[in-house]
Amino acid sequence: MMSSRMAGSVLLRHAGSRLFNAAAVSPAAGARPLLAGCDGVPAVMVRLMSTTTFSPAASDAKKEAAAAAKAAKEGGEKKAVAINSYWGIEQNNKLVREDGTEWKWTCFRPWETYTADTSIDLTRHHEPKTLLDKIAYWTVKSLRFPTDIFFQRRYGCRAMMLETVAAVPGMVGGMLLHLRSLRRFEQSGGWIRALLEEAENERMHLMTFMEVAKPRWYERALVITVQGVFFNAYFLGYLLSPKFAHRVVGYLEEEAIHSYTEYLKDLEGGKIENVPAPAIAIDYWRLPANATLKDVVTVVRADEAHHRDVNHFASDIHYQGMQLKESPAPIGYH
Amino acid sequence: MMSSRMAGSVLLRHAGSRLFNAAAVSPAAGARPLLAGCDGVPAVMVRLMSTTTFSPAASDAKKEAAAAAKAAKEGGEKKAVAINSYWGIEQNNKLVREDGTEWKWTCFRPWETYTADTSIDLTRHHEPKTLLDKIAYWTVKSLRFPTDIFFQRRYGCRAMMLETVAAVPGMVGGMLLHLRSLRRFEQSGGWIRALLEEAENERMHLMTFMEVAKPRWYERALVITVQGVFFNAYFLGYLLSPKFAHRVVGYLEEEAIHSYTEYLKDLEGGKIENVPAPAIAIDYWRLPANATLKDVVTVVRADEAHHRDVNHFASDIHYQGMQLKESPAPIGYH
Repeated sequence: MMSSRMAGSVLLRHAGSRLFNAAAVSPAAGARPLLAGCDGVPAVMVRLMSTTTFSPAASDAKKEAAAAAKAAKEGGEKKAVAINSYWGIEQNNKLVREDGTEWKWTCFRPWETYTADTSIDLTRHHEPKTLLDKIAYWTVKSLRFPTDIFFQRRYGCRAMMLETVAAVPGMVGGMLLHLRSLRRFEQSGGWIRALLEEAENERMHLMTFMEVAKPRWYERALVITVQGVFFNAYFLGYLLSPKFAHRVVGYLEEEAIHSYTEYLKDLEGGKIENVPAPAIAIDYWRLPANATLKDVVTVVRADEAHHRDVNHFASDIHYQGMQLKESPAPIGYH
Repeated sequence: MMSSRMAGSVLLRHAGSRLFNAAAVSPAAGARPLLAGCDGVPAVMVRLMSTTTFSPAASDAKKEAAAAAKAAKEGGEKKAVAINSYWGIEQNNKLVREDGTEWKWTCFRPWETYTADTSIDLTRHHEPKTLLDKIAYWTVKSLRFPTDIFFQRRYGCRAMMLETVAAVPGMVGGMLLHLRSLRRFEQSGGWIRALLEEAENERMHLMTFMEVAKPRWYERALVITVQGVFFNAYFLGYLLSPKFAHRVVGYLEEEAIHSYTEYLKDLEGGKIENVPAPAIAIDYWRLPANATLKDVVTVVRADEAHHRDVNHFASDIHYQGMQLKESPAPIGYH
């Protein structure tokens, strides 16, 4: 078993260096082949180990002061290192892309990237049968009117604004399930992770559209207001009825798919300029270097379709009188 | 570039099957070598793709009713599948361990497992210099007394209870940074992910100690009360001063290291029986099959030492007048 593990790790280390040429090939990778598969991670850890070992006076207050002073004088990168080395958390393992260029993102790492499954059925719709479903459906529908009036067909701006809201439910649901898991001493069936992944994915959508449309001051103000209201409303809603909350998100995602389809129409029709894809999008969805905004909108729409499925699925589980933990979560469902 | 990607994916697929012998070798792995590295994931996704493609009547209400009825009749596993297939989210890709046995956990996946770095310096202590640090330090110290009185040397129980609290700060911090990132249209520097990882890791500690000590009714009641108070206190504290909040957690982790060291002494001294390690711990920390509770406490203590560093580090960043996003988060720092 150990030998196969080692063999696996060796293969992975090769593959890993093929994929990222991580600056430091991890000597400890043998011990953690899984992480070695995700690469970068072991490199981080090895660096950390070596730093912690080689900094006996790490907690020396004078050193801290000196580092701080030094940091104050020098630029951002240096500054960070000065601080990092104080607590022995030095991250000088430079992650690099396949083409050997440096990995420039700190908000996500190479092993969080993926290729979206654009083959997913976009037309699928959950037919509201019960009263609760109908309320969820019409709640979402009624939210469309003000949105349409406010944004008209400025889809870039619309997408950016809506993603600030779309990233809330996953985080709220994940947090509440996490707290419940702790209170009740029970497993989550992977749903905490699944919902948090949804939240992080939606946040990446925002990070992408930020590059396409810059928010105006009154839009920033609106986002703060909307988040304040929506976060609390969803928090309360999820406490009262997760069945209802997930259904609402399912329908919100159906609307999102519709909006992105309209966005694509305007991009194809030339009404909106099909600018090159932001660098962050190319790295996150592993798009070709010459990808355009159209490609980005297409993969984002596919993501929303997956979130639609996950949330309708979660609601269905509750409808069948079960708890989420009783049915394994679709982890990594992109 | 593409060829190297394919080459990488081939290697990874080999390595992957060496590591897990994933039931389905993903034909789509070529498209997402990174996830293939983490294994299982592409298998999941390929299954999902095929299911969604092959279930045209997925949103058929009658089918749903039938599935529900069928589900009601049958057992847990069958039931789950019946529901899953409704939204086309079928998870019949059986993940397996290296030894070929089935992966039995839904609350975490093979690619979330790791080998703890037990070489970390456990003695390191952040010297409180400023008033705020002293308040943080004495707040934590004062919390020791009631804890010591309540638990005495029942460390199994103590560990279980404390992990229900330890898993809160990471989730609160991660959520607040997430919401801030959305409100301000700005990157997180990876800190959202880092803090959420801390929360999930602490929750896994709880899932482990649950197997060792079963909570009594009054302990369950206590956990609910403590969580209610601590969650809100930390939430407010983090809003007012993340610098203070992270410092408190740093000191809490220092106390945790102390408690686990005492736990180990009693295990070595034979005062507490060194029972075999719970199965979940063996899989999560990749421990040998004959691992004992002593091994588990050792790796958990190493985890706490890493959280100590991360939180003192986060507090230090704030002390230097910077925001967390300005200094990359130590992702995957185990």
